[in-house]
Parts: sequence; structure tokens; C-alpha cells
Amino acid sequence: MSASYIAFEGPEGSGKSTQAARLADALSAILTRETGGTAIGARLREILHDTTVHDMSPRAEALIAAADRAQHLDEIVRPALAAGRTVVSDRSIYSTLAYQGFGRELDVDELRTINAWATGGTWPDLVVLIDPPDDVIAQRMSERELDRFEAAGAAFHDRVIAGFRTMAAGDPDRWIVVEGLGSIDEVGDDIAARLAQRGVRIEGGRR
Amino acid sequence: MSASYIAFEGPEGSGKSTQAARLADALSAILTRETGGTAIGARLREILHDTTVHDMSPRAEALIAAADRAQHLDEIVRPALAAGRTVVSDRSIYSTLAYQGFGRELDVDELRTINAWATGGTWPDLVVLIDPPDDVIAQRMSERELDRFEAAGAAFHDRVIAGFRTMAAGDPDRWIVVEGLGSIDEVGDDIAARLAQRGVRIEGGRR
Repeated sequence: MSASYIAFEGPEGSGKSTQAARLADALSAILTRETGGTAIGARLREILHDTTVHDMSPRAEALIAAADRAQHLDEIVRPALAAGRTVVSDRSIYSTLAYQGFGRELDVDELRTINAWATGGTWPDLVVLIDPPDDVIAQRMSERELDRFEAAGAAFHDRVIAGFRTMAAGDPDRWIVVEGLGSIDEVGDDIAARLAQRGVRIEGGRR
Repeated sequence: MSASYIAFEGPEGSGKSTQAARLADALSAILTRETGGTAIGARLREILHDTTVHDMSPRAEALIAAADRAQHLDEIVRPALAAGRTVVSDRSIYSTLAYQGFGRELDVDELRTINAWATGGTWPDLVVLIDPPDDVIAQRMSERELDRFEAAGAAFHDRVIAGFRTMAAGDPDRWIVVEGLGSIDEVGDDIAARLAQRGVRIEGGRR
């Protein structure tokens, strides 16, 4: 199997953005992100993360994320895949299922239907979930200024991470789960080794 | 039947915003709008109508409008209805079906499903379609500075108005169609008379 569309998922503070960038570099892949991977998406992301917004309806939140995703797939992901490039994305459709589904407790199947429409049916081939122990996340988040999601409280974040774990456990061919402990290079090497088992080859010096 | 949620629909330049305001005043109703009826919606509307945006994916456009709608129903429409108020809305779910469905040629049934989810199942009780002759609209639009939708071209707008007419013809219990010719008061009186036939009573002096 040759995975062309690889997504990184995990809670804030998991190190997934760093690892997504590292892998994209090693694979000479297109590095992109949800939300905010396009100019339109950046404007949507600003609304989603704005700490001055206190009354956003959970369905509105889910639909703004889905809009970002539709634009992202049409403008970045599908053209890159069509051109034969590998795409590494910091977050994907699974973040909506975890955050708005498990986290905000919207119906996950309904979200899946809406987001399958948003994506036009293009799902990540492989998903790397970085899932460090809770106390590591708590320590890292205590050093950050929190945005609207990061400030949503422990119960919300417990549901989000439980959602990621449930999805990973239910679809093991698509998901790789790593703990994400150790140095950036150690975690990166762990991910590369796990991807190699799925047929993703990283050529050349760095890995 | 007592209609509590009345939407105005029609192309740009139809006079529907003016008539929505006039009716809301006469009914002492809550006057609101899609898109942009909430603070979050105003930020979404800005993106949707921005003439500097040229590459918005039709699905992203539809989902931004649906997000505006979810917020609008949760924050404005449903609380007002629950408090026993009448709501008059300048545009509704039917604008998405007309603009993104018929206009952008997305699947209307899929849009209906997504938007029924966005609205939480609350649909307008009555819809007033103001549908002036095409040459009247063309004349009025020639006097305006056009936004992203208004600038989308004649074929797009022909599909939009055909969509409104198709929906109105298919659901005559919900839709009232007026030509919208004459003075503001003449059109308003016409709408009031048509609403009275549907049991919507306008008390007091005006009209």
C-alpha cells in the first residue's frame, strides 16, 4: 500500500504539528493543516479560535470546521494528490469527529455524513495519533496561552482524547498510535518506523 | 394556522429586505436575517460576500452559509419563537437551496439534509417570495455596487430565480409569491393581504 494522504491527530500539546512538519520534510511532501490551510480557512479559523467568542453554537462550530475542510480538500489536498504528491496534514476530518462529536457531544454519525460531503469522499489513507499521557499534556498546556478550544475545560478534553482512542481502536488499518514521549527526533524516528511497517518509505539521510 | 416564523426570499434587488422590515414593524416581530443575523454570522457573511475572494469552493460556500444558519437558529430564531414572538427573517434555508443548490448546482437533496441538521429542524412556517420581472431586477442591480454573489453572472442568477420558483410551486401551502412591483406601500399591502389569507393578522393603524 502506498499512503499519499497522511494526517496527524492528537490533542493540543501533543507535538503533532512539529511531527507533521518533520515528516513532510522527510517525505518531500506538501505540508498543510486544518483548520487554516487556505486563505479562506485562515479567516474561518480566526473565528473558531477567538477567545472573545463565548456563545458559538456547537453545530455552527462543526459547520465552520466543515467549510474549512471543503475548501482545504478542493484547493490543496485533491490537486496535490492528483499531481502525484504526498500530503501531510496537521489535523483532518477526524478532528471534527473528536472535538465536535465526542467533545461537544454532537452525533458522530451525522457529523461523519456532513464531513464526507465536505471532503468529497477523500479520507486520509493513514492517521498518526500522538497520544501522550495526560499529565504530560497538562504540563505542556500550563505553559501556553490558551485559545477557545484549549480553554474548554478538562471534561471536554477528556472526551476528545477518548474519541481519538476509540476511532483509532476501531480502524487499526488506518491509524497508528504513538505516545510521543522523548525528543523530537526520537518521536520522529518512532513514527517513521511505524510508517515503514505500512509501506511508507522515507528515503535519504534524515529520518 | 398561526405562522410564527416568516421568511422573505428573492433575488438581490427584489426589495425583500425593505418588505421584511416593514412587515416586522407591522407585526411587532423580531426582524432578523441570514446571513449575518448574529455577531458570528456577520463575520461569516463578510467572507461569503468578499469580492476579493475568487476561489471559494461551492461546498465551502454552502457550509459557511449553513454555519451562519445554525448560529442564527440557536441564538435568535428558536429563543424568540420559544418566547412566543413572531420572527421575520430576511432569507432562510431556502436561500441556500436556491443559491448553492440551483445556482452553484450542488445536489439540492444533500443540501437539504445538511441544512435540516443546521437548523435543528426548524423551518419557516411561511415564505414570501418577491419575484419581480427580470428586467426590473436588471435595472435595479445596474445601480448598485455588486458583491460576490451579485457579480456571479446572469446564468447563475437565472438558475437561482428558477430555483425559487420551483420550490414555491412545489410547496404552495408554505410559499406566497408576489411580483413586488409598485411603491413600497403597495407591495407591503399586497403581502399583508396575502398573509391575511393564511391567518396572519396585522393589527393596528399601518396598512
